[in-house]
Amino acid sequence: MTLERWRHLTEWPLTAAAAVFLVAYAWEVIADLHGPQLFAAETVIWATWCVFLVDYAVCLVLAPHRWRWFYTHLFDLAIVVLPMLRPLRLLRLVTILAILQRSAGTAFRGRVLVYVAGAGSLLVFTAALAALDAERGAPHAHIETFPQAVWWAFETISTVGYGDYTPVTDVGRLVAVGLMIGGIATLGIVTATLASWIVDRVAQTEIDTRSATRGQIHDLSAQVAELKALLEKKSA
Amino acid sequence: MTLERWRHLTEWPLTAAAAVFLVAYAWEVIADLHGPQLFAAETVIWATWCVFLVDYAVCLVLAPHRWRWFYTHLFDLAIVVLPMLRPLRLLRLVTILAILQRSAGTAFRGRVLVYVAGAGSLLVFTAALAALDAERGAPHAHIETFPQAVWWAFETISTVGYGDYTPVTDVGRLVAVGLMIGGIATLGIVTATLASWIVDRVAQTEIDTRSATRGQIHDLSAQVAELKALLEKKSA
Amino acid sequence: MTLERWRHLTEWPLTAAAAVFLVAYAWEVIADLHGPQLFAAETVIWATWCVFLVDYAVCLVLAPHRWRWFYTHLFDLAIVVLPMLRPLRLLRLVTILAILQRSAGTAFRGRVLVYVAGAGSLLVFTAALAALDAERGAPHAHIETFPQAVWWAFETISTVGYGDYTPVTDVGRLVAVGLMIGGIATLGIVTATLASWIVDRVAQTEIDTRSATRGQIHDLSAQVAELKALLEKKSA
Amino acid sequence: MTLERWRHLTEWPLTAAAAVFLVAYAWEVIADLHGPQLFAAETVIWATWCVFLVDYAVCLVLAPHRWRWFYTHLFDLAIVVLPMLRPLRLLRLVTILAILQRSAGTAFRGRVLVYVAGAGSLLVFTAALAALDAERGAPHAHIETFPQAVWWAFETISTVGYGDYTPVTDVGRLVAVGLMIGGIATLGIVTATLASWIVDRVAQTEIDTRSATRGQIHDLSAQVAELKALLEKKSA
Repeated sequence: MTLERWRHLTEWPLTAAAAVFLVAYAWEVIADLHGPQLFAAETVIWATWCVFLVDYAVCLVLAPHRWRWFYTHLFDLAIVVLPMLRPLRLLRLVTILAILQRSAGTAFRGRVLVYVAGAGSLLVFTAALAALDAERGAPHAHIETFPQAVWWAFETISTVGYGDYTPVTDVGRLVAVGLMIGGIATLGIVTATLASWIVDRVAQTEIDTRSATRGQIHDLSAQVAELKALLEKKSA
Repeated sequence: MTLERWRHLTEWPLTAAAAVFLVAYAWEVIADLHGPQLFAAETVIWATWCVFLVDYAVCLVLAPHRWRWFYTHLFDLAIVVLPMLRPLRLLRLVTILAILQRSAGTAFRGRVLVYVAGAGSLLVFTAALAALDAERGAPHAHIETFPQAVWWAFETISTVGYGDYTPVTDVGRLVAVGLMIGGIATLGIVTATLASWIVDRVAQTEIDTRSATRGQIHDLSAQVAELKALLEKKSA
Repeated sequence: MTLERWRHLTEWPLTAAAAVFLVAYAWEVIADLHGPQLFAAETVIWATWCVFLVDYAVCLVLAPHRWRWFYTHLFDLAIVVLPMLRPLRLLRLVTILAILQRSAGTAFRGRVLVYVAGAGSLLVFTAALAALDAERGAPHAHIETFPQAVWWAFETISTVGYGDYTPVTDVGRLVAVGLMIGGIATLGIVTATLASWIVDRVAQTEIDTRSATRGQIHDLSAQVAELKALLEKKSA
Repeated sequence: MTLERWRHLTEWPLTAAAAVFLVAYAWEVIADLHGPQLFAAETVIWATWCVFLVDYAVCLVLAPHRWRWFYTHLFDLAIVVLPMLRPLRLLRLVTILAILQRSAGTAFRGRVLVYVAGAGSLLVFTAALAALDAERGAPHAHIETFPQAVWWAFETISTVGYGDYTPVTDVGRLVAVGLMIGGIATLGIVTATLASWIVDRVAQTEIDTRSATRGQIHDLSAQVAELKALLEKKSA
């Protein structure tokens, strides 16, 4: 079996595993589980983690140049190993974005905007989960409920930053930095797509204007020719 | 009667209804009405709502493919149904923007900037109204008067976010998220229009420079030709 | 005397009057003058105001189509009439920007960046003055000294908005809104100029690469021709 | 010895000196040194300063037009003289950026993004050091530890500005203004690079579409020709 074939076969199962993981993690964090429910959620989370671990190992074995694959896929390694730090496990969800990219139609600019909207929503949701998980129960913490965490995530990704809710733990602040970088990238992509669209529209308007001018000149010269013919007839 | 004809006929009445709704809603919220005045304002608001409901129903009946029209006009449905949540009724005002778009002249970039200025002002005004309506009277609320609400809306749309006034209710925060997204889009459109203008100006400068260079080369070769003619005369 | 000739003659005196006004106003606000010094500063401020009033009246008289000139120069009227509101008198300083524009060299993009830097600095300085003038002495005001006002102006124009200093008076908040709009425009122009530069650089790199490729193909075909010639010689 | 040769020879030693300076300064500030350790760190810092002073003097002596070199290298003078103000000594580190620029590969856009990421990280790190050095021990200061300073620097460069940590000293606020300008420039460059990439991708998509259309027309005309040939055969 080749690496390409394995990747093709496991694409949908891995995305499903990431979605299951997201649901279990959201349930655990939002409902602040205890006892058997916490055990169930944690079991699901560890099971999905095993799926990703197995996939990483199989890919490494199947790769033709193992060291080169290892060096060029350090991000995949990070997604598998970092789960020890609980909130960062959510990085695994980037695989869900691959689906968004596929279902966004064919026009490039429209696809970019759909992708940005999807990635932004997922980023806000997962960052709110991760921040809530890290902050809840910390001394002097402001972020104590899920609605507060979502509100804080929106404030941060839009770079408004009122300061009514701020993370106080190191993990919470790490999540915030990721969200800020996401905010800058989102702002940049939205601006760039609009710029590309406006540049095109202006160019189109100019071409239209030029064509119209050319058409008018054509009409005018035709009229002049007719006038000349009339005059010649008369003078003849 | 066709759908196009209905739309054409009802365009101005619907815009007028939206404007009347805005005035009545602003009066109710800013003056914090009670008794018979509140009843009058509410009557006007419900009357304009009926106008929009009737328009939606007629459009649905006149549409050739009803289900397709229903799916592609979910936003119109939202504008009609959401009014139950009071501040969101303001979404209906997007119809006013259609007029702005028409009266903004012909140059594309100028039109975009006028549209952004108009949409931004309307967004700040309606968001201030909606936030004031949601926040006033809530426990621990900071936004208690209309000038405070306008100041908060400017802070938010510009992504400055001092944090001296922040919404504390769920509806107020929903309004804030809408305003943040509006702020990002505004920033993006302003930047993109300026970028398009600067790219054009730079291209124009380069073309001018090139033309100037060509002109100088032309002059130079003419002078060389004259010199040669002079030399030939002398040698003859 | 024509309007153009008057404008040409008064350009430098008016700029000098604006600069004198700025210095007198800055002295009055920063030093928090009282008694005869305040009287001297106020005299200078009113004298420069008279200069602008006279210029406006003369322009209106000299204009060929007085009503049209009046309608198309409402901003000039605002600069002359608004001084009643003290901080807004600073709007008159936009005439200083005309000099910046002239001394900024010839390359369009460089000129834009110098202009933005100059306009941004002038905006921060005058906004700090105006906010300090409006806020100092107001109940619950945070902005009490000039360094605090400059720090607040930088926070606002960059849209950071910590919220450690915020305006509490209506005039102060009006100044802040102007500064926010200035911040958005500045951000937009900087981004747009960089975008124009990067687009050009990328296009240049591509042209260079293509030229290099063409050159290599040329060399290659020359070598092939030489080889062929050699082979023909041998076979002959 | 010429100036170019000196510059070429001293490039790597100067970069090493800047790196050593950064490590010594970071150690002194983060560990809040006292006694002999402070003396050791200060000795290293002054030694690297001497290296830069000697380099500046040699360059000035070797320059063919000394006054012109002096005027066009005022920034180098500032880096050498300003160290008297402790945190600004970090400006010397811009020499490290020259290396980043070199190691960032060949594709222009990729190089720009690597450069921005490197410059941004260095800016956050050095600004956190400088702000901590200026703020620690000041009355009413919020920034007291290095993690707090890094968190504050991220808040500021992203223009989020929660306001949970703000500088209160003049030097700290100067550092903040530098960081805000860095933030605006970073945002601008990221946006501009994305814009350039999207403009190219859209142009590419259009070219592809046009090529595809042309290919289909070619195929179609070939099929028509075949049909015609068939018909002619039959009729013959």
